[in-house]
Amino acid sequence: MPVRAYGAYAGDKPLEPMDITRRAPGPHDVQIDIAYCGICHSDLHQVRAEWAGTRFPCVPGHEIVGRVAAVGAHVEGFQAGDLVGIGCIVDSCRHCEDCAGGMENYCDGMIGTYNFPTPDAPGHTLGGYSQQIVVDERYVLRIRHPEEQLAAVAPLLCAGITTYSPLRHWKAGPGKKVGVVGIGGLGHMGIKLAHAMGAHVVAFTSSESKREAALALGADEVVASRSADEMAAHARSFDLIVNTVAAPHDLDAFLVLLKREGAMVLVGAPASPHPSPAVFNLIMKRRSLAGSMIGGIPETQEMLDFCAQNGITADIELVRADQINDAYERMLAGDVKYRFVIDNATLAA
Amino acid sequence: MPVRAYGAYAGDKPLEPMDITRRAPGPHDVQIDIAYCGICHSDLHQVRAEWAGTRFPCVPGHEIVGRVAAVGAHVEGFQAGDLVGIGCIVDSCRHCEDCAGGMENYCDGMIGTYNFPTPDAPGHTLGGYSQQIVVDERYVLRIRHPEEQLAAVAPLLCAGITTYSPLRHWKAGPGKKVGVVGIGGLGHMGIKLAHAMGAHVVAFTSSESKREAALALGADEVVASRSADEMAAHARSFDLIVNTVAAPHDLDAFLVLLKREGAMVLVGAPASPHPSPAVFNLIMKRRSLAGSMIGGIPETQEMLDFCAQNGITADIELVRADQINDAYERMLAGDVKYRFVIDNATLAA
Repeated sequence: MPVRAYGAYAGDKPLEPMDITRRAPGPHDVQIDIAYCGICHSDLHQVRAEWAGTRFPCVPGHEIVGRVAAVGAHVEGFQAGDLVGIGCIVDSCRHCEDCAGGMENYCDGMIGTYNFPTPDAPGHTLGGYSQQIVVDERYVLRIRHPEEQLAAVAPLLCAGITTYSPLRHWKAGPGKKVGVVGIGGLGHMGIKLAHAMGAHVVAFTSSESKREAALALGADEVVASRSADEMAAHARSFDLIVNTVAAPHDLDAFLVLLKREGAMVLVGAPASPHPSPAVFNLIMKRRSLAGSMIGGIPETQEMLDFCAQNGITADIELVRADQINDAYERMLAGDVKYRFVIDNATLAA
Repeated sequence: MPVRAYGAYAGDKPLEPMDITRRAPGPHDVQIDIAYCGICHSDLHQVRAEWAGTRFPCVPGHEIVGRVAAVGAHVEGFQAGDLVGIGCIVDSCRHCEDCAGGMENYCDGMIGTYNFPTPDAPGHTLGGYSQQIVVDERYVLRIRHPEEQLAAVAPLLCAGITTYSPLRHWKAGPGKKVGVVGIGGLGHMGIKLAHAMGAHVVAFTSSESKREAALALGADEVVASRSADEMAAHARSFDLIVNTVAAPHDLDAFLVLLKREGAMVLVGAPASPHPSPAVFNLIMKRRSLAGSMIGGIPETQEMLDFCAQNGITADIELVRADQINDAYERMLAGDVKYRFVIDNATLAA
C-alpha cells in the first residue's frame, strides 16, 4: 500500500514529502493510521548521516501513536479503532534470553523502527513520519490515555521509556534521592516520572533560565551544574543520577555526588567521548557508571499504563510536516519545550 | 615504646632502617608483634611520593600478621598469643552509616594503616614494616590458618580482601562466569577466590607466559587479552569482570565481553586516566563500570575465615628487610610470583 511520508534522500538533503509502501498486514500484523509522531534527537542524527550506516531514503520517527485501521486474522490483542503506540522496536529474534525476558531492546537481533534491515521494500525499516505503519502485534502498545492527550503521549514511546526503565531498574521511589541531568526531551520526562514514583528529585541544568520550569515539572530542587557551591552541597548524597546529556561533559562532577553504591546511568551516547572519568571516584564509594537503552515491550506498556494512571504526558509543541526541517534547527538551538510532535494529518497536504 | 622499622625520609630516598615509637596500649588496644608484612604496590607509590600527600618519615605496610603481645584492660576479643592480622584500616569515625554497616573502608573518616593523621607521634600513622603495631581491637582480625602458613596469609589483608569484596558484592558463585584481568598480586588472589566460590573463572593476561600459572591458580580458562580472536570468542558472556590492572588500558575491550547487566569492577586506580570508555558499550546491554576499595572489617574477617576453610593463601616470596628496595625494583619489573612478604624478624638485624 502506498502511503505518504516525510524523509530524506541523502544526508545533506532536507527532509521532503515522499511516497513509500507498507506491506499488506499479515496474520499477526496490526495496521495503524498514525495520528502523531514525536521528533527525537536520534532522528536528526540518523537522517543527517551523523551516525554511521544511514540507509536512504530515510524516514525517521519512533514515537508513534495512532488508531488501529485493520488487524490480521490471528491478532488477538487489538482491534480496529484501538488507540495504540509504536516505539523504537518493531521486531526482534523472539527466542533469545533477552526476548524471552521481555527485554527485546537488548536483543542482538532487535529491528529498530527505522533504518534497520527488513524484507519489506525498500529493504530497511521506515519510521513514523508517515501516514501508516504495519507492525507485528507483539510490538504494539496499548494507549489508555484520553484521546485528547494523544499527541502528548507520543514522546513517551522513546523519551518516556528511556528514562522510565533506568528509574525502575535502579529502584527510584520513596526515600531515594534521584538526580536528572539535562532538562530536555528526555530529562523533562525523567523529572516527571521520578517525581511520580515518589523519589526526591533534583534537576541539574546548565541553564539558569530552566530553574522555574524544572520545579514546575516536579523537581524538588534544582542545581546549577556550573555552580561549584551548589554542586558541593549535594556531595555523596544521591542514590541514582539519570544523565540525559549526550554532549561530552565532565562525568566526575556528578559521580562525586553519588552516595555509597550509587549509580549514574547514561542514556545518551555522545558523538565524541566524554572526558575519561576518574577511576578513584568509582572506587571510593563503590559507585557505578552504567548505561541503559530504551526499554522492552512489556516495560514500555507498564510505563504507558503508569503514565495514564498518573496523568503524565510530555510537554510538546505540535508542528506540521512542512515544519520538520525548521523544527530540527530549533531542536539544535535548544528552542523547544520539550518535544516537537508532528501532526501526521498534515502529511496528506 | 621504641620499635625498629624500615621506611623512607623522603620520596627520592631509598627505604632504610629507622626507629619509631608506638603508643602504650590503651584500654581497647591490642599490641601486636609483627611476624610478616606483605609488600603492596601502594606502598611503593606512597613512599616514593608518586601519590599526593605523602607524610615523611613514611613507614609503609598494610598486610600485617603476627601474634598478640599484650591487650588493654577492656579488650574482650583477643589475648596474648593469638594470631592476628591488621589490614589497611586502623581507625574510622565509628558512628556513620558506613561504620555502622561494617564498611569502614568507605567511611569518610577512615584512618589508613600508614600515612593518615593520628594523635600518636609523629602525627601520621606508620605501617607494618616494623616490629610492633598497636591498634584498637575493633580493627584487629583473627587468623585461623595454621601458623606455618602465616607469612602467606599476610597478603590476604589487602590483595585478598580487595578482590574478595567485589566478588561477593557482585555475587560470584556457581553458574556465574567471572573474569579476572591481570595476574599479579591482586589478580592471583582473585582467581583463587573466585574459583573457591564456585564461579567459572577466566583469567585475562597480556603475558602468554602466565597461561599455565593461571590455570594452576584455579582459572578454568585463560585468554590472551592481545588476541582479538580469543577475546571475541567471549563476547557478551561475563557476569562480572574484576579488573586489577592499574596501568591505563582499553576498558572497552573488556566491557564488550559482559553480558546484559554485567559489571566490570576496577580495583586499581591508574596514575593517568584510562582511555575514555565508549558510552555505547554501557548503554547497549545495560552494563556497569564500577569500582571497589578493599573491604570492611567484618568482611575482611569473613574473607580470612573463608580462606582458612578453603586452604587459601597467597603465593609469596619471603624477603629480608634489607631486600625491600630490591623487591620494589623487581615488583616494577613484574618479577614476583605473586607477592613479596617481609620477614619482620630481620628488622632487628
